[in-house]
Amino acid sequence: MGKSTRFARRVSVRQVEEGTGLAPKFDENGLLPVVTTACDTGEVLMLGYMNEEALARTIATGEAHYWSRSRGALWHKGATSGLVQTVVDMRIDDDQDAIWLSVRVAGSGASCHVGYRSCFYRSIPIGAEPKPGLELRFREDEKVFDPGDVYGDAPNPTRL
Amino acid sequence: MGKSTRFARRVSVRQVEEGTGLAPKFDENGLLPVVTTACDTGEVLMLGYMNEEALARTIATGEAHYWSRSRGALWHKGATSGLVQTVVDMRIDDDQDAIWLSVRVAGSGASCHVGYRSCFYRSIPIGAEPKPGLELRFREDEKVFDPGDVYGDAPNPTRL
Repeated sequence: MGKSTRFARRVSVRQVEEGTGLAPKFDENGLLPVVTTACDTGEVLMLGYMNEEALARTIATGEAHYWSRSRGALWHKGATSGLVQTVVDMRIDDDQDAIWLSVRVAGSGASCHVGYRSCFYRSIPIGAEPKPGLELRFREDEKVFDPGDVYGDAPNPTRL
Repeated sequence: MGKSTRFARRVSVRQVEEGTGLAPKFDENGLLPVVTTACDTGEVLMLGYMNEEALARTIATGEAHYWSRSRGALWHKGATSGLVQTVVDMRIDDDQDAIWLSVRVAGSGASCHVGYRSCFYRSIPIGAEPKPGLELRFREDEKVFDPGDVYGDAPNPTRL
């Protein structure tokens, strides 16, 4: 199904900001950034990306789908790990180039491939000019799951 | 001050994911996506971007700085509107290519240039294949401020 049959056209700033038509603006790579939070705690779990197909499947199924930039493939979150994200609320921002998903996570409730609940498990200390000696502080005491058990030999998505 | 004097080098996946050094990965445009949430409610207020300078200034001052892609300039949030964002917690994700700011917003507490509290003031209905007739639902009943009063004749950042 082509783009023109799925979404509204972007005609004016007023329509995009104040209207009720879904008229998303994908970036030069065909992607939208997506913030995913836990519906019960408000914790930010991850920041991912959707292409048009991932956006359409998330809307149609109510389960979070992303575009995996490291694998270059559509990604039904939880297909490997079982940690499916059921969408409780799905929002789009003022200029319609970013998505917010509020989700309930299946199983252990984790969303991070390293094994933590949230991908954002470290804080940056504030109040001084950053320098290489700055030390991040861990905010989760222990991993929720063992990535080796869950993902086996699948390649790590982190790129240097 | 050059990049090499501010942040740690990215040496290994293990160091990036499990270490305590701040070793951010900026994208091909020199930017990191930033999720900003309200510290009291957990509501996602906006999704912005930081370049190296915006990241360094946010860390040093404890007030949110972004890179404005529409203006191509460093952006001290609230400099025009007075709606400064004071950072309560600042986190970085597993592969260190995204930031989460938990903030307290000055004044009316709004963060959206359209006048709403959050940029994410509309929900996307779930459960059917998207098509142009789909109708977004407004989740904020009224604007917190009048953008005309606050921004005057400044150009609207939304791009078609």
